[in-house]
Amino acid sequence: MPTLANLPTPCLLLDGSRLQANIDDMSRRLAGHGVAFRPHAKTHKCAQIARRVARAPGFAGLTVSTLREAEFFADAGFDDLLYGVSISPDKFERAGRLLARGVSLTLVVDTLEVTDLLIHWLEQQGLHAPVMIEVDVDGHRAGLEPDDPALQLLGKHLAASASCRFTGIMVHAGESYFCEGVDAIAAHAERERAGAVAAAAALRSRGIEVPVASVGSTPTARYARDLTGVTEARPGVFVFYDLVMAGIGACREEELALSVLTTVISHKASHRRLIIDAGGLALSKDRGTAGQQRDCGFGLVMAVDGSRPYPGLRVDAANQEHGIITLPTDYELGAFPIGSRLRILPNHACMTAAAHGGYHVLGESGEIGAFWERCNGW
Amino acid sequence: MPTLANLPTPCLLLDGSRLQANIDDMSRRLAGHGVAFRPHAKTHKCAQIARRVARAPGFAGLTVSTLREAEFFADAGFDDLLYGVSISPDKFERAGRLLARGVSLTLVVDTLEVTDLLIHWLEQQGLHAPVMIEVDVDGHRAGLEPDDPALQLLGKHLAASASCRFTGIMVHAGESYFCEGVDAIAAHAERERAGAVAAAAALRSRGIEVPVASVGSTPTARYARDLTGVTEARPGVFVFYDLVMAGIGACREEELALSVLTTVISHKASHRRLIIDAGGLALSKDRGTAGQQRDCGFGLVMAVDGSRPYPGLRVDAANQEHGIITLPTDYELGAFPIGSRLRILPNHACMTAAAHGGYHVLGESGEIGAFWERCNGW
Repeated sequence: MPTLANLPTPCLLLDGSRLQANIDDMSRRLAGHGVAFRPHAKTHKCAQIARRVARAPGFAGLTVSTLREAEFFADAGFDDLLYGVSISPDKFERAGRLLARGVSLTLVVDTLEVTDLLIHWLEQQGLHAPVMIEVDVDGHRAGLEPDDPALQLLGKHLAASASCRFTGIMVHAGESYFCEGVDAIAAHAERERAGAVAAAAALRSRGIEVPVASVGSTPTARYARDLTGVTEARPGVFVFYDLVMAGIGACREEELALSVLTTVISHKASHRRLIIDAGGLALSKDRGTAGQQRDCGFGLVMAVDGSRPYPGLRVDAANQEHGIITLPTDYELGAFPIGSRLRILPNHACMTAAAHGGYHVLGESGEIGAFWERCNGW
Repeated sequence: MPTLANLPTPCLLLDGSRLQANIDDMSRRLAGHGVAFRPHAKTHKCAQIARRVARAPGFAGLTVSTLREAEFFADAGFDDLLYGVSISPDKFERAGRLLARGVSLTLVVDTLEVTDLLIHWLEQQGLHAPVMIEVDVDGHRAGLEPDDPALQLLGKHLAASASCRFTGIMVHAGESYFCEGVDAIAAHAERERAGAVAAAAALRSRGIEVPVASVGSTPTARYARDLTGVTEARPGVFVFYDLVMAGIGACREEELALSVLTTVISHKASHRRLIIDAGGLALSKDRGTAGQQRDCGFGLVMAVDGSRPYPGLRVDAANQEHGIITLPTDYELGAFPIGSRLRILPNHACMTAAAHGGYHVLGESGEIGAFWERCNGW
């Protein structure tokens, strides 16, 4: 029977109770705003977790970040998916196969060029797709500026198309990951809301129906104070949370559901170093906390029972299969014997999880339950 | 038939000729020093590439970084493997299964505690294993200091053991990754050589036989000027090279064999941005060039034919599935149409490759040949 003492390391541990609490909290908050819950599956890429979020009140389908995920979740029985990344012509055919299977796969556009190509291609294939326009509220990544005249044009072309069903506006407040504290997050959430609502209003003023105004990001979904005009939210990392989220105040450290189980494989006494078998591959090289008030290195170090992070301990360096923890002078190497186990809290759960084949689910008493597989790659 | 235009992106491209040239160059240099070639497979984790290196002159087996790799390569017919990471008691049983199959799996120790546990465990199991002692020459990671009195003790215990065959000293000059230029690398290689040779000499002076003095790291293996006393070398990333290696002068950019094929999926005209479908997962979040003279962001941008990196273009930001390239003013968005393809040179090939299931091998005329699978995970 697998236990915390005998699981091959490194591997992912998922605290089942925390996972459920995180899902409950997020879905309850969104339900309180009257906003549908379309969580992003890119963080977990796992059918069992998707089924848990699907049981939450207000669940309205999944968001995915790749067509591989879309296929995986369609195979798992999810038939309402939003592919939240600009669709490009090279991916029409693969998306079309899902549409032809009867999956409601919403596609996202943010240029006139792709919009017209998509309309035309779907017509040729005799396919129909729900389509959203991505609008950018904070310069983070992709999407049309809310005042870009092209927005009207895209809306008009989509509304007039027989092959596309224009469903609305999608925004992602990615810059919220750089907020500090709940008030700043709430202010950013208002910016996200206002941008989505303004873009929808601009289209409506031209007589275009805009059923959906979809916002994204875990911090803004959790700490928005007003979501008037928003119809759905797409938080992702909330299922696990991570140190980046804790660092901006979007969660408490005790809510982190994911950790990497690791073994102390050596001591380098001359340098006061623990060598662990979770390195850059098992933890990822994401240094998302580097710019935060507390730099967590490549992750914080917890006792194997998950009770607490050791104050002042972090993974200071990460080679491919070696993690290095340099002990401050108030710790003794002997307190962490070779062969003993630790748990590492990750900076960025999405990246850390992606290196692993799945999750060992931890029960309430620390027992290892099922292994839940992930779908990785493209 | 797969082509550069229709392969699903993001994916890995491997230039078959460059791979072969890199293998030929490295094996020839080491043969010139009379040093055996035990290349590290952690970079590629691929049976086809292992077979190519195995055909090189002086090949003396593979180095691996996980027991998963050891099992994979044993299954592929490789029976002489060095597991180059401190063995810990939790992994004895898994390593023992390989030994019991007849694989010559060399294990590495650097503490007296594990050495004694290993000797005892092997005795109990009736197994025999070749064992090396890791010595640290540059404070990079693990291993005993060359003047640590424990070195003598480990050597004595191993030499006296009936279950272990002490084969020698292993060092890894990991700090060579921070050298600048060939002269600095050569100086570091001398430090690595001297450390290995001194440790071996110290043991020999006590009457302990030390058949092997094994050095590691691509930069030092390539640019060592004298390897007197060294018997084998374990370079890894040389098969592909990468931008970190180019940045320290360990290779030329034209030698980089690995790239990520990506599609331009959108334009964000207001910010002069190309959005590509290679993000943090496909490229990795390794920022190994951040401290170098040329910060390559999350990778340099090449034309799809691989002919040249575009001057001044890099992947400036990487979200999970979005890469962002901000065009300098001397470029036009229109030169990179949506749907067109680019190739991204990675900072750190080992990390980038690990996110992918395998390699699309590029032939001399840019044709896509076989797909070579990787073994990922633990």
